[in-house]
Amino acid sequence: MRKSIAIDMDGVIADTEPHLIEWYKNETGISLTPQLINELGEDAAFADKTALHKVLHTQSFFRTVPVMDKAVENVTLLMEDYEIFIVSAAMEFPLSLYEKREWLQEHFPFISWKNIIFCGDKSIIDTDYMIDDYCKNLDFCKGKALMFNAYHNAHINHHIRINHWDEVPELLKTLTY
Amino acid sequence: MRKSIAIDMDGVIADTEPHLIEWYKNETGISLTPQLINELGEDAAFADKTALHKVLHTQSFFRTVPVMDKAVENVTLLMEDYEIFIVSAAMEFPLSLYEKREWLQEHFPFISWKNIIFCGDKSIIDTDYMIDDYCKNLDFCKGKALMFNAYHNAHINHHIRINHWDEVPELLKTLTY
Repeated sequence: MRKSIAIDMDGVIADTEPHLIEWYKNETGISLTPQLINELGEDAAFADKTALHKVLHTQSFFRTVPVMDKAVENVTLLMEDYEIFIVSAAMEFPLSLYEKREWLQEHFPFISWKNIIFCGDKSIIDTDYMIDDYCKNLDFCKGKALMFNAYHNAHINHHIRINHWDEVPELLKTLTY
Repeated sequence: MRKSIAIDMDGVIADTEPHLIEWYKNETGISLTPQLINELGEDAAFADKTALHKVLHTQSFFRTVPVMDKAVENVTLLMEDYEIFIVSAAMEFPLSLYEKREWLQEHFPFISWKNIIFCGDKSIIDTDYMIDDYCKNLDFCKGKALMFNAYHNAHINHHIRINHWDEVPELLKTLTY
């Protein structure tokens, strides 16, 4: 049986961080930088919670997120050897459910609906590997955790870090599991 | 740690079968009975695939499904002792995603968004128990399988059968696992 990989959307195959910074700036006038988010932490950096909530619940926010550099090419490559599941914590933002499904259909049409999971908590997801940008998902995952680099996780060191999608196929080959 | 239960929506907490029979009749003029679905099997009974597809992709179909008798009361009761996850194979019907989320918010507002999962294939769901009406989910589930009675599964005998929600709390107590 092929090994399975749960791949997150926001911050992993979707380049959500710069998109959020841009929309947050349009809403508040505040220009956040990667350095500031890294220094302050995500929660303190996006200090205006009303504006943040508004952005994340605005129609088309999730539909228009750009694709992460080389995600399509490398996910395509991984599908030759692994069972790929896209696992997104979409349930917090009801509007995003349909938009994320459409986004995947546009950018990753080769991924079957059978392999897409929208959830809240990822604790009941059981795959051999999980690629994610948040410890809240990686720390408790049942498989091998791989952390995709993000401004907000730059200070975390207890997971294997992925800096770019081009690293992933080789990295997986080197992991004995 | 509390044991976890994955509970399906359609045919388990949502009384989808009679709802589908009614909408299918409105579309085709054909009156299906539980007996006929049981005898022919679901696939042969809903023979007009164009009409079936239309119904399942019509806005408000999933939003208006009635709640299964005593599902709310018994899920509420189970939440005292178990971690409850609602796991629905909603991904096949993109329109249903938002409607199912709204349906849950209306009828099961006490279930957190963190405990809702919309997926395709349920093979990567890992809970201690799974309550579902389809073998395609139950046969491969990682926990203990419990089959919720439906017209279409009346002939299947290799899972413990639940005939009514009122049976569930006692049944779970008797299962050593």
